[in-house]
Amino acid sequence: MKNVKLICTGCDKEFSVNELHYRCDECNEPLELEEAKDGKISKGNLLNQTILDRYVDFFPFLDINDEISLGEGFTSLVESKKLAENIGIKNIYFKNESQNPTWSFKDRGTALGVQHALKLGYRKIGTVSTGNMAPSVAAYGSKMGLDTFIFVKNNIAPEKLNPIGIYNPNLIKIDGDYGKLYYESLKIGRENDIYFINSDVPFRVEGSKTIAFEICEQLDFDMPDYVVVPTSAGGNIRGIEKGFREFKNCGLIDKIPKIIVAQASGCDPIYRAYSNGDERISRIDNPHTIAHAIENPFPPSGNQVLRMVRNNGGTVVSVADEEIIRAQAILAQGGIFGQPASAVPLASIIKLKNDGYIKESDSVVSIVTGSGLKYTAALDKHDLTSYTCKLEELSEYIREIS
Amino acid sequence: MKNVKLICTGCDKEFSVNELHYRCDECNEPLELEEAKDGKISKGNLLNQTILDRYVDFFPFLDINDEISLGEGFTSLVESKKLAENIGIKNIYFKNESQNPTWSFKDRGTALGVQHALKLGYRKIGTVSTGNMAPSVAAYGSKMGLDTFIFVKNNIAPEKLNPIGIYNPNLIKIDGDYGKLYYESLKIGRENDIYFINSDVPFRVEGSKTIAFEICEQLDFDMPDYVVVPTSAGGNIRGIEKGFREFKNCGLIDKIPKIIVAQASGCDPIYRAYSNGDERISRIDNPHTIAHAIENPFPPSGNQVLRMVRNNGGTVVSVADEEIIRAQAILAQGGIFGQPASAVPLASIIKLKNDGYIKESDSVVSIVTGSGLKYTAALDKHDLTSYTCKLEELSEYIREIS
Repeated sequence: MKNVKLICTGCDKEFSVNELHYRCDECNEPLELEEAKDGKISKGNLLNQTILDRYVDFFPFLDINDEISLGEGFTSLVESKKLAENIGIKNIYFKNESQNPTWSFKDRGTALGVQHALKLGYRKIGTVSTGNMAPSVAAYGSKMGLDTFIFVKNNIAPEKLNPIGIYNPNLIKIDGDYGKLYYESLKIGRENDIYFINSDVPFRVEGSKTIAFEICEQLDFDMPDYVVVPTSAGGNIRGIEKGFREFKNCGLIDKIPKIIVAQASGCDPIYRAYSNGDERISRIDNPHTIAHAIENPFPPSGNQVLRMVRNNGGTVVSVADEEIIRAQAILAQGGIFGQPASAVPLASIIKLKNDGYIKESDSVVSIVTGSGLKYTAALDKHDLTSYTCKLEELSEYIREIS
Repeated sequence: MKNVKLICTGCDKEFSVNELHYRCDECNEPLELEEAKDGKISKGNLLNQTILDRYVDFFPFLDINDEISLGEGFTSLVESKKLAENIGIKNIYFKNESQNPTWSFKDRGTALGVQHALKLGYRKIGTVSTGNMAPSVAAYGSKMGLDTFIFVKNNIAPEKLNPIGIYNPNLIKIDGDYGKLYYESLKIGRENDIYFINSDVPFRVEGSKTIAFEICEQLDFDMPDYVVVPTSAGGNIRGIEKGFREFKNCGLIDKIPKIIVAQASGCDPIYRAYSNGDERISRIDNPHTIAHAIENPFPPSGNQVLRMVRNNGGTVVSVADEEIIRAQAILAQGGIFGQPASAVPLASIIKLKNDGYIKESDSVVSIVTGSGLKYTAALDKHDLTSYTCKLEELSEYIREIS
């Protein structure tokens, strides 16, 4: 590995990238890999590259094991002129992360985490998740034949459990305080030589950098005004912001877009702290939102997201379930069926436009984090219509309605 | 549009590409767009290209409307060394079409069909589908603000209906003989100016060509011995074979891989006709397979697939539901969760290897047509295991099992 450091986001203490460190042993804040200061995009045919091949200068690996890849990344950036016009802004683009191998952005960070785990000699990996991360880690563990440990909530629905189970990991439903499980898993990992690729561990954050890198390429390095990210633990948004920072360091872009932290009002600890001017987040009691995938009552990177967004100059917004459901339907009018959490940015954009924060002249990128197929029960909240018609009456019926 | 013809696959009668023709008005066989005889791959950054941009030489459009695109294509080709070793062949690659915008290969053909429809001046589109094609056509219709007509079976499960409804098409459940609906829809389309992008219409077949084009690029133009395709109506496999044919015409590859038609034994009209030496397929009564997505009892391109595979030198194979379910689990061990139909090629490869048709020295590409999330009820057929553990006992439990 290259000679770079892991640096504490809270107190700047340094740690070696050749050992497994997740958080600072002094202030317990998350670590971040030292920023890339110079780097270029590797040329080559994207059809024969992985994200690590293309952006290798921005990662600490001296050689890359491409066998780990399931084809994560290089997702579409889809413009909707119709929705931009309806919302009353200049441009809106959707970064469609549902096109990843397990249909969420998590695959980028998982691929990076496994790359690092194997470099450090680990043959066991794990994660704590009720949503997108569990199938992702299970899939990559399966691909590489690693012993894989997935901890989920005891009351997880079969709709979500079976698509993890198909990859055949050690799948364990936990009876107890789920909030404590994040820290407990890191401890269990240390004791049993399991590399836990949890929500905001440094190499998962590194994976999310590539979302920003691709957006830069897809917009021909002409930066949007805002990038809006549904935010739970905080790992993804931290990675995206870091990606823009590194491309600016390297002279690839002139400005860093403003980052908007989008939360659901049923679970918005970062929004509350930001609004109150607090430096640290507080735990939310009884979180409840249809956007399950971002329902984290005490995000482990919450404090760092607060520091990041204040430094970046963006903002934090919170939207109600009704706004999320409406935005999910509007997103589908742009041709994209995202899970409820993935509609939180669009709901936030509409709200911020109405509030006058986002202007008519602004260009906005919305991160669609995962597929709507992950949680089809949410569709019961929509008023979807269909008609029944006899085959012999179909011709006449179509003539009437078309 | 360029000066190319639509040619009947049955009797060679020619039709204009500037009018809407699906099938021959004399012999009722499907039409095929004239082969590209010379063409090159367009250079450029794939992150800023659509499949139509990249392979524009191979399509009849003089100018391309990129607004139609949802980012279809450029899916991964994932090698599994572990599975190749287990099966006892040289290489196995999975073309993961579940990474398309509506998570199946159908998006390629839909994008092409809409491109052609708009060129011909249509503002209404439609399809007949119970599976992957319905959400695909609904999504593209929604993106472009077209009046969209989706005909589905009356008894379609809510798990499948709602992910179509979210795009808000005219969604019509048909009470009557579903087998007749394909032809009835084409008639209704003509009467009401609706462009029906059904399973094997010429421009849907054109969309599937790009699967072959990408495989060629991804394998550095070093062709595999076999490409195995789950086959229902026959449109996808026809497109894939045509893609290889055109790249060979243009000197981009030296040989065309052998194409293997993979069917489920609960609905295998092409296999039966092939085995019997028949020139035409016969309708299957009471089709029933877990691979719903390929359960077409009377494939409209069935006769042409027979002609194609005999000419190409490949073969046709049929596998039982138990083999399909087992293959779905094996595929997940390669890190890919495909719908049951997408496991039919892997089941076929295992069968053909055991039968001695596929040899140890062979390289094989398996087409994974759609996401396993499309039909999670199939997971009930698997013996998936999970454990429950109290949080305070977790540490000890993991020490025991890891």
